[in-house]
Amino acid sequence: MELSNTRIKLVRAAMLLFWENGYNSTSIADVLKKAKVNSGSLYHFFPAKTDLLAAVLDLYHDGIRQMLLEPPSAGLADPIQKIFAVLGRYRCSLVETDCFYCSPIGSLALELRDPDERVRVRLAKNFRAWIDVIDDCLQQSKRRFPAEVNRRELAQFVLTVMEGGVMQARTFRDIAYFDGAVRQLRHYFVRLGRGGSRGLMRRTRMPARTLKKKIK
Amino acid sequence: MELSNTRIKLVRAAMLLFWENGYNSTSIADVLKKAKVNSGSLYHFFPAKTDLLAAVLDLYHDGIRQMLLEPPSAGLADPIQKIFAVLGRYRCSLVETDCFYCSPIGSLALELRDPDERVRVRLAKNFRAWIDVIDDCLQQSKRRFPAEVNRRELAQFVLTVMEGGVMQARTFRDIAYFDGAVRQLRHYFVRLGRGGSRGLMRRTRMPARTLKKKIK
Repeated sequence: MELSNTRIKLVRAAMLLFWENGYNSTSIADVLKKAKVNSGSLYHFFPAKTDLLAAVLDLYHDGIRQMLLEPPSAGLADPIQKIFAVLGRYRCSLVETDCFYCSPIGSLALELRDPDERVRVRLAKNFRAWIDVIDDCLQQSKRRFPAEVNRRELAQFVLTVMEGGVMQARTFRDIAYFDGAVRQLRHYFVRLGRGGSRGLMRRTRMPARTLKKKIK
Repeated sequence: MELSNTRIKLVRAAMLLFWENGYNSTSIADVLKKAKVNSGSLYHFFPAKTDLLAAVLDLYHDGIRQMLLEPPSAGLADPIQKIFAVLGRYRCSLVETDCFYCSPIGSLALELRDPDERVRVRLAKNFRAWIDVIDDCLQQSKRRFPAEVNRRELAQFVLTVMEGGVMQARTFRDIAYFDGAVRQLRHYFVRLGRGGSRGLMRRTRMPARTLKKKIK
């Protein structure tokens, strides 16, 4: 029990530090200090820094559904609205941090130039789980898209837009860049849906309060 | 002349190393070794590592039109085709590196958690110059879009898709993820254009050889 707690403390501390400062800028000493754990315990669980990173990525993966879907889409029945609610959550993270926010998996995916294959596989697994969440929503609303729409590819595209939009908002320190990306995606969804602009998105308008906040 | 050459050697060496290994993983000693320059000269030009990074970003910016537009779109008259040719260039970089490629500005934008303001401004300036190139193409083809299309935002969206697509292809080590993102963007362009699928993209098909390579 004691050992298990120590392991969790280390993984949580590393998760926070890798996200805040990046993987390469975080030293083992930083993790030990943050976790308040001695180095013997760390090396017992994680012989190398890469092992710690692999554990962090497993922790992200284990929480991805609960972190992504449940909080932002609570109370929403419409699956397309759920997708835009997931994106809305990233918007909140950007706004709350004055656009310093970066997505943890996306940042690691670019920071690590030649990651250990165990690490790369876990980065991909996290992306796949994210895409699965969007794919499920698209599957639930498949009657609202023409048959030729490649649902999996569209789900991947939602991730592409989220990551690219976060990157630009962060670089310009301006939420308008994220909002613009999401708006373009929304236009695309409207045009993809059966029945044009009166089709797919008719039932997916955000509540007036959220919409106002989005437009500012 | 000698001094100026030394400065250029340092900036070019740093440019390559930051791109290959990341900013935080590159030491001043690595730059000196690569540039074959002594530390006195480096500190003369660049008192801090951030100064060197600022110079690298200026060099990227100075070359962005020549690097981006001229080579991939040489011989192309159609401005929409030029946009997809720019994206095609990133595809080549991914294919040539077995999907290890990462965009230099995008990677720095995510790696540096709280960059010096001079650096952040230069990252944004590079993105702005990239977006300008796409915006020019859209301006030249504006009659093929309905008036309500927000051209600037669409140009930003092209950057979003490029960066997000590169990130996924890199993480999955699979070009299909980049191709999927570009294909979705192409579908969006088709649907945005006047006259539906027979409008905007009719004149923007890629040469058969390139298309075949894209589809594999």
